[in-house]
Amino acid sequence: MDKLKIAKMITMLAGCEYKNMYLNDFFETWHKTDDEIKSVFLVADILRGLREANISTRIFDSGLGISLFRDNSTRTRFSFASACNLLGLEVQDLDEGKSQIAHGETVRETANMISFMADVIGIRDDMYIGEGNRYMREVAKAVDEGYRDGVLEQRPTLVDLQCDLDHPTQIMADTLHVIHHFGGVENLRGKKVAMTWAYSPSYGKPLSVPQGVIGFMTRFGMDVVLAHPEGYEIMPEVEEIGRKNAEIAGCKFTKVNSMEEAFKDADIVYPKSWAPFKAMEKRSELYKQGDKDGINKLEKELLAQNANHKDWECTEEMMKLTKGGKALYLHCLPADITDVSCEAGEVAASVFSRYRVPLYKQASFKPYIIAAMILLAKKKDPADTLSALLNEAKPRIR
Amino acid sequence: MDKLKIAKMITMLAGCEYKNMYLNDFFETWHKTDDEIKSVFLVADILRGLREANISTRIFDSGLGISLFRDNSTRTRFSFASACNLLGLEVQDLDEGKSQIAHGETVRETANMISFMADVIGIRDDMYIGEGNRYMREVAKAVDEGYRDGVLEQRPTLVDLQCDLDHPTQIMADTLHVIHHFGGVENLRGKKVAMTWAYSPSYGKPLSVPQGVIGFMTRFGMDVVLAHPEGYEIMPEVEEIGRKNAEIAGCKFTKVNSMEEAFKDADIVYPKSWAPFKAMEKRSELYKQGDKDGINKLEKELLAQNANHKDWECTEEMMKLTKGGKALYLHCLPADITDVSCEAGEVAASVFSRYRVPLYKQASFKPYIIAAMILLAKKKDPADTLSALLNEAKPRIR
Amino acid sequence: MDKLKIAKMITMLAGCEYKNMYLNDFFETWHKTDDEIKSVFLVADILRGLREANISTRIFDSGLGISLFRDNSTRTRFSFASACNLLGLEVQDLDEGKSQIAHGETVRETANMISFMADVIGIRDDMYIGEGNRYMREVAKAVDEGYRDGVLEQRPTLVDLQCDLDHPTQIMADTLHVIHHFGGVENLRGKKVAMTWAYSPSYGKPLSVPQGVIGFMTRFGMDVVLAHPEGYEIMPEVEEIGRKNAEIAGCKFTKVNSMEEAFKDADIVYPKSWAPFKAMEKRSELYKQGDKDGINKLEKELLAQNANHKDWECTEEMMKLTKGGKALYLHCLPADITDVSCEAGEVAASVFSRYRVPLYKQASFKPYIIAAMILLAKKKDPADTLSALLNEAKPRIR
Repeated sequence: MDKLKIAKMITMLAGCEYKNMYLNDFFETWHKTDDEIKSVFLVADILRGLREANISTRIFDSGLGISLFRDNSTRTRFSFASACNLLGLEVQDLDEGKSQIAHGETVRETANMISFMADVIGIRDDMYIGEGNRYMREVAKAVDEGYRDGVLEQRPTLVDLQCDLDHPTQIMADTLHVIHHFGGVENLRGKKVAMTWAYSPSYGKPLSVPQGVIGFMTRFGMDVVLAHPEGYEIMPEVEEIGRKNAEIAGCKFTKVNSMEEAFKDADIVYPKSWAPFKAMEKRSELYKQGDKDGINKLEKELLAQNANHKDWECTEEMMKLTKGGKALYLHCLPADITDVSCEAGEVAASVFSRYRVPLYKQASFKPYIIAAMILLAKKKDPADTLSALLNEAKPRIR
Repeated sequence: MDKLKIAKMITMLAGCEYKNMYLNDFFETWHKTDDEIKSVFLVADILRGLREANISTRIFDSGLGISLFRDNSTRTRFSFASACNLLGLEVQDLDEGKSQIAHGETVRETANMISFMADVIGIRDDMYIGEGNRYMREVAKAVDEGYRDGVLEQRPTLVDLQCDLDHPTQIMADTLHVIHHFGGVENLRGKKVAMTWAYSPSYGKPLSVPQGVIGFMTRFGMDVVLAHPEGYEIMPEVEEIGRKNAEIAGCKFTKVNSMEEAFKDADIVYPKSWAPFKAMEKRSELYKQGDKDGINKLEKELLAQNANHKDWECTEEMMKLTKGGKALYLHCLPADITDVSCEAGEVAASVFSRYRVPLYKQASFKPYIIAAMILLAKKKDPADTLSALLNEAKPRIR
Repeated sequence: MDKLKIAKMITMLAGCEYKNMYLNDFFETWHKTDDEIKSVFLVADILRGLREANISTRIFDSGLGISLFRDNSTRTRFSFASACNLLGLEVQDLDEGKSQIAHGETVRETANMISFMADVIGIRDDMYIGEGNRYMREVAKAVDEGYRDGVLEQRPTLVDLQCDLDHPTQIMADTLHVIHHFGGVENLRGKKVAMTWAYSPSYGKPLSVPQGVIGFMTRFGMDVVLAHPEGYEIMPEVEEIGRKNAEIAGCKFTKVNSMEEAFKDADIVYPKSWAPFKAMEKRSELYKQGDKDGINKLEKELLAQNANHKDWECTEEMMKLTKGGKALYLHCLPADITDVSCEAGEVAASVFSRYRVPLYKQASFKPYIIAAMILLAKKKDPADTLSALLNEAKPRIR
């Protein structure tokens, strides 16, 4: 990307209404305005352009980025670390362990104790329905109070790196990939997106990806179809958001119980396994009660239920149903690939292979999306900041 | 804090005798002169002032800060990481594991192997009486030799992040908080400090906080009372230090076996659980012998002994005994809060709640105290260095 | 080291043919030309000189160094972290766990997912014969493709931090130490090196050090003797490399089954335990089959076999056999020291003690060797880059 193109994007950014992002958090996408979403996409592309031109994008001379993960995650960890590093923040990990769900005094105290020099906190907490998002908001409230009371010199920005409701950094990276693929956001109108369930030999996968897609891709004038076997419903409140988005954008949000129907003439397919919302609610309850037998029983039931739907696989035959047989295949990775990572899975090996490069590119947007969210929360005049970086052109590698 | 005030503190710092801190370590506070202590407080306040004015305090363009912890510690880890990051050092953790107490060849070798590019090593080793401080001094000796023999290009500074004898970074952060609370170190004279034992349902808590307080707060002309049930004695040599300090400072150091008596008219209260010194000595011995049955037996005895003193709780009634009912309540956190973190603990929920903001502020001083200790060991002319940072005024966030 | 001497080395570097190192990896030393090897030594010494002159050697304003370790390693971890920090890269660790040997899709995907902002990946994988090197090359191929396909903005350089075949960073650090000890590479010709097996009460130690020495030290005109009891053969293909090297360099590579014979008149001795190559091959096979009983049986056999050779110890008597009784004793550390770390081991306590300082110095070269490998892969004109650093002379500690 040449500097002129970067400068042009900075000018576009300057025309966006982003002032409410300053000193704010990034949680569910549906709480952000269209201009705020556009700003994130622009800043992500600008940061990428600067880095590719070997121009340093450090805006912090020192500062910490805290990662607060409920469970291990190589990809999310590296995305967050890359984003922080790109801006000049050093990452410190705080692993809370899987089992323990802290609340109240402990959350308040820990949030403040780790934040004395924290510019951003990235939280991933997607394991329990009704818990992850609530926990993030508890942390946000704690640092709000800490800042207000003079405990914290700065108020760290929170970024939702995946919760039980949404997966904003993933879905925005996916969508930026889609935008680049189709040559601009203006080309998305009228495209058909098939967000479909797919079979997996594991169970209990989070709902944040399908919910994130329903709550986000419906904003761009695309016709979004949610497809899953009966019993694999997502959260009704997120479906409602999808419906409202579609109404405003003048497009359709529909639900079907057939993968074939969803794939028919689709421009984009996103076949991916997830657990039924109600089962996840039940599991959260069993965990709270410490009911191990109940958890084991539920696991067996869910695996048996999954096994009834092995035909929900993204095969070559399925792909042929899509627009010209050439829909863009999306996945958040890692995928359950039939005959590669498992006997029967979400996608056929030949389909996955054909889309490997686009899939990796899809993933490559995430560090830039996270960095953009941080920058927009930390700089009152992000366009000025980015313009100064472009003009100074300090080499990233000297 | 405005820049004029920062400049004024730098001038005060220039008048202190700090030359022995250069290329030296920071272990027990009682081995540091009054001017050295004053220098740490000044540098901590100056660094905080600079950061709050968005002025970068990086003095290292590259370099490592090594954390060497015997056990996990979120707070200490983040304090040390924050201090290092503030000065431009990257943290590398070396976790040695709880069980293993290395000595001799292993310590000497490891100390050198991790120090080729280390500017500071922060050590926390508080679990075994008679071990933690000895271990730190072994590491110090090893890097002394390594530097002298030309193995190490620089001699990393050691900072005691908590040992069996003292907890200098905690106690100095506590005291800086007290100084700010009372509007200056000159206002501490004549204040009464109650360092008291308090009930906790756990056992084996380190003695480093009460010992640190006795060995440090007695230097400022404050009357320090140490209160605990019979059998919860701290190390006699630290009591002796407290006595000598008080004599020199012209104040009192007394011991009582009643929480009420200690709280009576106190300006500052620090109610906190700890294990009896003799029991900790015995425990260290049992661990050395690998006597698991003995350890379990001792644990049960100690818990039973604790349970006899559930009335040692910082309740509203207790607080009413203090000066105007408004003593400053201190705790190193986390506290055992009755009805919040346990059924019966060190402090009543309403007392803790009322002091939450001051408690968090107390903790906020620690990263700056650690950074000050490092800076004073690394710069021969710290006042010049800080003056240059102030004048250049490079933004921390550009 | 004065600046004039550094400048002189930079001029020497400028005369080397290093262009194939640019954007390349560093695996086995035997795939590098003499000029490339010389370049690494020069850059290592230049970086050390600059650091000792308090001149910053940051060439990265931001960027990540990924450490990908199969097992825990304090020394290697700190060496790699030090090297990255010296150049301005932040380290992110990816621990894959001991048990799991990933291949195919997983390696390809992970390699790309962690590399979006990675400038270097350091890999240590020495546990299984036939696996470590293969794994590194799989990662290299994956990032090659990722870069070619436009997934990765930059192609991270790979550095072999120890594999089943070679241990280039160790052996080059060892050799740079030898060069300094003897006052220049030109003084190595005709020196005798004894690379000998030594007894250890543990088993299964990697072969990478003896193989690395055979494959490298034979290039400098030194007569290299490989000594071990029968049954402790190293890989025949590496012996073949040693033979060819010696032929080209006009020196000798010989094999004996006697420690005494090897030590006789040696200038340099490297007594160190390793496992028989064939046993390691068998072990890899047993691990693949998950044959725990077989592994335990093999372990017992190997320990019994070792125990037959307790006389292979670097004692004072052995040292007396060397040139003037004063050969340079090398070890990669940690050593099994008789009466210190074990009852009977590789080296007598008095020998080890006498050589402790040189041993630590030997280790001190490794971070600089790693940093040199990275710099030569990242800068097309390293001499220009280093010259600019020297002239600007930005302080590392301001």
